[in-house]
Amino acid sequence: MKQFMGEDFLLSTETAKSLFNECKDEPIFDWHCHLSPKEIYENKQPENISRLWLSGDHYKWRGMRSCGISEKYITGGASDYEKFLKWAEVMDYCMGNPLYHWTHLELQRYFGITAPLSLRTADSIWNEANEKIKSGGFKPRELIERSNVVCVCTTDDPADTLEYHKLIAEDKSFSCRVLPAFRPEKAMNIEQPSFLPWLSSLEKTAGKTVDSYSALKAVLTERMNFFNEMGCRASDHSLSYVPCVRASEEELEEIFAKGKKGCPLTAAEIDKYRTEIFRFLAKEYSRLGWAMEVHIGAMRNNNTLMFNKIGADTGYDSIGDGDIAYGLSRFLDSLAEENSLPKTILFPINPKDNYVIGTMLGNFQNDDAPSKIQFGSAWWFNDNIDGMMQQMKALGNLGMLGKFVGMVTDSRSFLSYPRHEYFRRILCELLGNMVENGEYPNDMEVLSQTVKNISYYNAKEYIGI
Amino acid sequence: MKQFMGEDFLLSTETAKSLFNECKDEPIFDWHCHLSPKEIYENKQPENISRLWLSGDHYKWRGMRSCGISEKYITGGASDYEKFLKWAEVMDYCMGNPLYHWTHLELQRYFGITAPLSLRTADSIWNEANEKIKSGGFKPRELIERSNVVCVCTTDDPADTLEYHKLIAEDKSFSCRVLPAFRPEKAMNIEQPSFLPWLSSLEKTAGKTVDSYSALKAVLTERMNFFNEMGCRASDHSLSYVPCVRASEEELEEIFAKGKKGCPLTAAEIDKYRTEIFRFLAKEYSRLGWAMEVHIGAMRNNNTLMFNKIGADTGYDSIGDGDIAYGLSRFLDSLAEENSLPKTILFPINPKDNYVIGTMLGNFQNDDAPSKIQFGSAWWFNDNIDGMMQQMKALGNLGMLGKFVGMVTDSRSFLSYPRHEYFRRILCELLGNMVENGEYPNDMEVLSQTVKNISYYNAKEYIGI
Amino acid sequence: MKQFMGEDFLLSTETAKSLFNECKDEPIFDWHCHLSPKEIYENKQPENISRLWLSGDHYKWRGMRSCGISEKYITGGASDYEKFLKWAEVMDYCMGNPLYHWTHLELQRYFGITAPLSLRTADSIWNEANEKIKSGGFKPRELIERSNVVCVCTTDDPADTLEYHKLIAEDKSFSCRVLPAFRPEKAMNIEQPSFLPWLSSLEKTAGKTVDSYSALKAVLTERMNFFNEMGCRASDHSLSYVPCVRASEEELEEIFAKGKKGCPLTAAEIDKYRTEIFRFLAKEYSRLGWAMEVHIGAMRNNNTLMFNKIGADTGYDSIGDGDIAYGLSRFLDSLAEENSLPKTILFPINPKDNYVIGTMLGNFQNDDAPSKIQFGSAWWFNDNIDGMMQQMKALGNLGMLGKFVGMVTDSRSFLSYPRHEYFRRILCELLGNMVENGEYPNDMEVLSQTVKNISYYNAKEYIGI
Repeated sequence: MKQFMGEDFLLSTETAKSLFNECKDEPIFDWHCHLSPKEIYENKQPENISRLWLSGDHYKWRGMRSCGISEKYITGGASDYEKFLKWAEVMDYCMGNPLYHWTHLELQRYFGITAPLSLRTADSIWNEANEKIKSGGFKPRELIERSNVVCVCTTDDPADTLEYHKLIAEDKSFSCRVLPAFRPEKAMNIEQPSFLPWLSSLEKTAGKTVDSYSALKAVLTERMNFFNEMGCRASDHSLSYVPCVRASEEELEEIFAKGKKGCPLTAAEIDKYRTEIFRFLAKEYSRLGWAMEVHIGAMRNNNTLMFNKIGADTGYDSIGDGDIAYGLSRFLDSLAEENSLPKTILFPINPKDNYVIGTMLGNFQNDDAPSKIQFGSAWWFNDNIDGMMQQMKALGNLGMLGKFVGMVTDSRSFLSYPRHEYFRRILCELLGNMVENGEYPNDMEVLSQTVKNISYYNAKEYIGI
Repeated sequence: MKQFMGEDFLLSTETAKSLFNECKDEPIFDWHCHLSPKEIYENKQPENISRLWLSGDHYKWRGMRSCGISEKYITGGASDYEKFLKWAEVMDYCMGNPLYHWTHLELQRYFGITAPLSLRTADSIWNEANEKIKSGGFKPRELIERSNVVCVCTTDDPADTLEYHKLIAEDKSFSCRVLPAFRPEKAMNIEQPSFLPWLSSLEKTAGKTVDSYSALKAVLTERMNFFNEMGCRASDHSLSYVPCVRASEEELEEIFAKGKKGCPLTAAEIDKYRTEIFRFLAKEYSRLGWAMEVHIGAMRNNNTLMFNKIGADTGYDSIGDGDIAYGLSRFLDSLAEENSLPKTILFPINPKDNYVIGTMLGNFQNDDAPSKIQFGSAWWFNDNIDGMMQQMKALGNLGMLGKFVGMVTDSRSFLSYPRHEYFRRILCELLGNMVENGEYPNDMEVLSQTVKNISYYNAKEYIGI
Repeated sequence: MKQFMGEDFLLSTETAKSLFNECKDEPIFDWHCHLSPKEIYENKQPENISRLWLSGDHYKWRGMRSCGISEKYITGGASDYEKFLKWAEVMDYCMGNPLYHWTHLELQRYFGITAPLSLRTADSIWNEANEKIKSGGFKPRELIERSNVVCVCTTDDPADTLEYHKLIAEDKSFSCRVLPAFRPEKAMNIEQPSFLPWLSSLEKTAGKTVDSYSALKAVLTERMNFFNEMGCRASDHSLSYVPCVRASEEELEEIFAKGKKGCPLTAAEIDKYRTEIFRFLAKEYSRLGWAMEVHIGAMRNNNTLMFNKIGADTGYDSIGDGDIAYGLSRFLDSLAEENSLPKTILFPINPKDNYVIGTMLGNFQNDDAPSKIQFGSAWWFNDNIDGMMQQMKALGNLGMLGKFVGMVTDSRSFLSYPRHEYFRRILCELLGNMVENGEYPNDMEVLSQTVKNISYYNAKEYIGI
């Protein structure tokens, strides 16, 4: 029996252990996350482990609700200590859940606590963890630096002034680069209530009136150029499916005019608008050499009652199951045909789509970049041992695993970097098994370079930092 | 090499073996099955093993047809002995099929026969098994009691008088509770030929005329109250997809009136009717504290020729592949918004939907119950080692495995209880691997309680018996 | 650690090794491939290993593009040697990809080269392989005979004269039978630009005018009878989904007339035409006792730019994700109802459909043949260890693995026969694990016959050669 989450956690062969040893100290380039640049800049001392863990993590909230815990102890008025106890209570029921491993990786790596958390140990861990926090090393920048992170890409709206990115960049005492990433979600969601307020905020930031589709494009180009100057190297999109319904500029002006007036739009109009603005943006990314990240298939805000109470990103999202292959193929092809398909990273959320995406890549590869079209690492609900293993096996079977740009935390938490370690262990286990089973030569030079590349160098080269 | 289906069948680690030892003697609560209350009440002596195994089991019939065996030996006029020989013949070809394991678990547990069945052993097993049957212990109630079953929930139509449930309840000599479960399938299938005959039988049972949608609802409420008095704790539904197309009471009255006249209905009308009657029923379940079981995605009666010859439930069903996420989300949300979503157990039939369902749960969990929304155990075509392992891994990754309500036989056979043992072995193997791999602490107190809970106590508490 | 692709490659248990020993020398019946009968007849000496490997293999081309290699070295003007070097370069990045194993199986089995290919060994392997080629044994017929292939079924258009099949059959010095298979894809794709040119070529071959739907059917029947005389035992179809929209003969004549005039057809008209011509063909297959192969779900020619440059079948295809269950069920049922469903082999390309197909089989099995409806071996993008394992596990769980007709290369390359060995190893590994885990009895007589049957005899009996 192996030690619980010990040194060889997830590594079952000697080859896997050797390979992990080769890559574990490589730096982290977390090229997609949801950290707040403001929080990084302000660098506040956290009050206690409950705040660090439970004040914003909707993954944990979901877990607690699934145990039948009252909302009072989740997003409600209970004390930090009470909430911590409720989280500890969950531990006896979530075997097999990545939350269990994340919790203990974080306790081990940042707090030096190896005891499993449960109601039986909650008090002592509460005290020990909070003392450690008090004694230092738990401010945002400290956590980032302790985690050997050399660069993070945040997720930023086109209307964002990036003021905190500027302030962070000016502070030479902080060793990690904090770059913006361009997420024009609200620009694409013309049919949603967020569109008009967003348009106002964009006008304010840009100091221009946006009264037409062409004006919108012009302002977005300005913003992209500005983001680029600020070090932006990637964009990010999230769609339930990628549409490809083409439209003329005239039609788009009409649709935009209707949207701007708040008139209801037909499904076809929305698809047309979304297709063409996305095509416009993609071409700009291609011009700027940015990578385009596309997250496909999430179904958000499923619980109206709770949405009305506590808003979005609170743990009420799930996996959709619509068809994605045809639209995505036509969309990417429309850009490839014009030689303006940017580097693209596809993140499917439904594991049924792993083979669709794994083969979609191959349709558009060329010598613009090694694995120009990438299969993004297992995302959100798939960000667990099985999900990561399956994503890498699919990529291995269907594409070039050796060119994979690897892991991102996609997280809001400053404690989430051990997920890179978790990923690297799983990667090394996968390759180790191949070698031990005689499926790949025991060529440690190639393999060692491969795990280093997937841990860090491929992303560094691909994103271009 | 392990012994064929020996003591440690499916248990590859010491932890798994210990855990199985902890839970194997827990009672069985089979909260969803298709046993006949009449057969339980009548408690007839079976004639021979062929009748026990082959007279009603369409799983086996499918297996036989897949071997190219003539219908004569399946549902036709061949003798019981000839049919038994044909089933024995199948054994050499169905490696990897749960039928192989079920067959041998039943031979071992009920007959004490450990020899593998095949044409080479068929004669001797035929003789030995039939002698055992003659010597007693194979009547329905005897099989149930020998299997340590403390409660079963049958599947019953609203028009059913539940007379056999009454008779069984009155007989204090039988230790197992036999509760009805409410399956209003024919009430929901307004477009099918079964609707009008069903309505007549409902009117007869209720002693009332059902000439309007509101009258139908009133009678159904009466029936639900009656079922509740008879100990009903759960309902059961089977749909190819869960629709969510809302309609007013007036529209519903019009649709009902058309349906009652036998007029053809549009797809939209059917969806509206099915949505709203299901919503009505779900609210009633919520009022009564019942669990709502929803089986999603089966595609039934695919072979018209054979349907016309031998009817439904004869082995001609398969797995559909339509989208289910959006409708299901909207349906459940419409109830949650009104605080009337009952405890709900979702059974997807297409394993591509495991992650859709596994994440759908989380959208509607709250403190009404621990894991109020449940991911039902691997069902029908997934009721095999791989399917059960995948369902539990999905639940583990996405929800709270420790709160899982576990296994049901979903069976028509009195010999099917070893499927609970099969399930418990797989559960213990899964948890054993986690512990042996250092993925969960070797805390036998927690783990032992977990396997007991999933084997019995969670369902007992959740369903409420 | 096991030797890299050594004697026991993919075989982890003693049972698996014994079983592989039992079946490895069984002949190969490659009942579905894309070999050129012309090339078999002409039997030309290959120039070098680069031509053998890289001149037509779009799997390898995709792999190279995924590494960022320029098209010049793939389908462009670079020298054979340069292309070979680029392929060697890919080897360090494609761990987990079947291309890696195929490459080394081919080096080992045909060239006796055991060194792993990479840029570091490329020169010496280039020289050694080319010397071996010069010294003989690498002409098409030699490769086929060295591979112990007793029969191949090519893939042939109805308009094909089968002249090379005739010539090969006349040459008694060649031990392998080369049979045609009937692939009327262009007859079914009435909406595509290929339809009218194809119709002309059919008219030319048949020496008849095809000016009506009924005339088309008559000529196709003639061609099928001719194919049958030439030894044809199977047909082949590839569709993104199987439609079932019925139409009258009159409607079909109208649709055909529009198609023949080059008028655009509606989606409904195309579905009607495709449904009914496919039904017509299937009935003819049933009459002739042919097996009907149906490949479902590929999404082809996704890259317009490259399609315009280098045409179809050049590595720009991927996996579609549309619904397939309902149409396929209705289509097969429409034939079964008329007692004219032929033996049918279903090949889904999207692994999400494994359980849909695995259960669809059971809807239409009867005593026409053992497993009359077959689940085709893991195809194209699934033709890898995981894909083959999953297909066989699905078939095992849902059907009769022992009746499986097994592997086909589906290949354009004369070096691809080791894929049968690859498949047999995986099959033996699967069965070996069942036995070692106590899930199937250690009955080597049954198991040995099973692996021989799946390797060769089942297909021989089922296809009927």
